[in-house]
Amino acid sequence: MATAVVTQESLLDGTVLDTGLKVRLAARDNKHTKSTSGLAPKYLQANLIVLPSRYASDFRDFCTRNPVPCPLLAESKAPGDYGQLKSYLKISAENVASSLDIRTDCPRFNVYRDSKLQEAAVPDIMNHWTEDHVAFLIGCSYSFETALTAAGLPPRHTMLNRNVPMYRTSIPLNPSGVFSGGTYVVSMRPYKKADLDRVRAITRRYLPTHGECIAWGWDALERLGIKDVDSPQWGDAPMTMDGRPLGAVAGDEDNVPVFWGCGVTPQEAVMRTSLQGTVMAHSPGCMLVLDCLEDDVLES
Amino acid sequence: MATAVVTQESLLDGTVLDTGLKVRLAARDNKHTKSTSGLAPKYLQANLIVLPSRYASDFRDFCTRNPVPCPLLAESKAPGDYGQLKSYLKISAENVASSLDIRTDCPRFNVYRDSKLQEAAVPDIMNHWTEDHVAFLIGCSYSFETALTAAGLPPRHTMLNRNVPMYRTSIPLNPSGVFSGGTYVVSMRPYKKADLDRVRAITRRYLPTHGECIAWGWDALERLGIKDVDSPQWGDAPMTMDGRPLGAVAGDEDNVPVFWGCGVTPQEAVMRTSLQGTVMAHSPGCMLVLDCLEDDVLES
Repeated sequence: MATAVVTQESLLDGTVLDTGLKVRLAARDNKHTKSTSGLAPKYLQANLIVLPSRYASDFRDFCTRNPVPCPLLAESKAPGDYGQLKSYLKISAENVASSLDIRTDCPRFNVYRDSKLQEAAVPDIMNHWTEDHVAFLIGCSYSFETALTAAGLPPRHTMLNRNVPMYRTSIPLNPSGVFSGGTYVVSMRPYKKADLDRVRAITRRYLPTHGECIAWGWDALERLGIKDVDSPQWGDAPMTMDGRPLGAVAGDEDNVPVFWGCGVTPQEAVMRTSLQGTVMAHSPGCMLVLDCLEDDVLES
Repeated sequence: MATAVVTQESLLDGTVLDTGLKVRLAARDNKHTKSTSGLAPKYLQANLIVLPSRYASDFRDFCTRNPVPCPLLAESKAPGDYGQLKSYLKISAENVASSLDIRTDCPRFNVYRDSKLQEAAVPDIMNHWTEDHVAFLIGCSYSFETALTAAGLPPRHTMLNRNVPMYRTSIPLNPSGVFSGGTYVVSMRPYKKADLDRVRAITRRYLPTHGECIAWGWDALERLGIKDVDSPQWGDAPMTMDGRPLGAVAGDEDNVPVFWGCGVTPQEAVMRTSLQGTVMAHSPGCMLVLDCLEDDVLES
C-alpha cells in the first residue's frame, strides 16, 4: 500500500524540526523560511490572520458561525498581544504555544494594506504589528491528513507530491457584520467509493480542524458550484494515480471527489471585504506550528 | 409606532405564567396545553429533540457543525436522564432548568417511530422515554424577536398576529454521520431597507439563538432557492401591513425579506434521516421554557 512520505527537515546545524517550538524558533531566526508541510509531525499547525481590533468582534463571530471552514483555535489575549493567547480549544492557552512571538514565528508572512497585497513572503511583521492588532489562529487540514495516512488512506496529492487542490464554491457563509457575501472554499481529495465511510468516520473526529468532509461524489461538483474539477483556484490540479487529469475519469467510482471545508475560507472572506488598515497573514503553506498535538483536539 | 402585543397568560387558579418554571409546572400538570409564544416574557425557550443514544454523537456534532440553524443549548447529562442537563451555554446546568422533567414539561409532544409520526400533540412522553434516550435543547428565535420589538422593530408577523413564515432552502448543512443531505430551514421577517443595519446588529448578539440574519434582500430568495415567498413550508404566508401577499410588492424597499436560521432545521434533518426507534420532540410552538433569561445568552 502506498503511503505518504513525511519529510523530516534538519537545519544546517543539525537541529531536527520535530516540535512546534523548534519550528517557531527556526522561523524566528530565519533558519527555516519555507512551507511547514511535513514538519513536526503530529503537531497542530494553524492559519494566521491578524486584523485591526475594530474588526475583531465581527471576525470572531464570523468564525463561530462558520466553524467548519473557519475553526477558530485561539486569538490574542488582548489587542496588541503577540505573545499570549486566549484558547478556544480544550487545551489551556499556555499549552497551545509557549514562548510565542506571532510577529516572527511563521516562516513567511503576507502584509495587506487597505485590502491590497502590499508585501509578500516577508520574514517577519515586526514593523507592521501595532498595539491595535489582534491575531487569530485557525485550524488547518494537515491534522486529519496525518490520520488518514495512518489509517492507510493517504491523500492523493501527498502520494503524488503535489499541493491539495482548493476550489471556490457557491455555498454561502453565514455573515457577521462586515464579513458578508463570502462563500466556502473547499479542499478536495479523491477516494474510492468503497472507502468513503471510513474517510468520513476518520475525519469526523477532527471537529476543530474542519472535521468530516462536507460533500462527496461526482455530483457534488454541481451542488458546490464547481465548474471544472481540473481548474482549482488554489493548489495543484488533481490527478489520477497514473497521471491523467481527474476530469478525464469523471464518474469513476475509484476516483470520487471528496470535499472538506478549507482554511483558505476565512482569508478569502477577509480579503474580499474592504477592510481599512493593515491586515497580516502567514504566507501560503508557511503556517504557525503549535505546541499541542493534532490528537489533543480530537473529540473523545 | 406599532408594537407587538405580549399576551400574559393566567391559569384558572389565577397563577400568572411569568417564569420558565411556572410554565413547565403548568405544562406538567396539563394546566397549560398549547403554544408557549408570548409566555414568560424574557425567559429563554428551547426546541426539544429526543433521540436514541446511538444517534446522539452524530447529532451533537451535527449541531456543532451547524450552529446558526441548530444552536445546541444543552443535552441530557447522561442517556436516560430527563431531569439533569449538561449545559453548552455560559450558564451552569442548574441555572438552565431546575426541577426539570423533560418527559412532561413541554405543553405538548410529538412521537415518531422509525421516522414516522406515531402520536401528535400528546401531553407527555412518560410511556415512550427509556433509559436509552438523550434529550437535546436547541435555541429558538423568540429571543431575538423580543429584542427587535424592544428596539422599535417588531417582527411583522407579531404585529399581524400571525405565525412567522418558514421556508426550506437549497443551502446545504454540514453533514455529520447519519445526518447528511439536509438543508437550512429559514424564518423570514420583512423590514424596511433603511432598518437593515439595525436589524442585523440587534440580532447579531444572540449567537446561541440563531444570531444575525443569514440573508436579506429580494434577490436573496433566489440565492436561497426559495421559489415563492407567498408559499412558506411552515407558518403563515407573509403579508404587507395593508393585508396583501408579500409577493405582490416584490422589489419594494419598504418590505425587504430578511432570513434567519430556523430551529425547524434540526427537526427537519432528523425527520428526513431514516432513524430506527422512537424519536420525540415538542409539538410545534409548544416549547420547553427555561429558567435562564434571553439576555443571559447575549455576547458581552
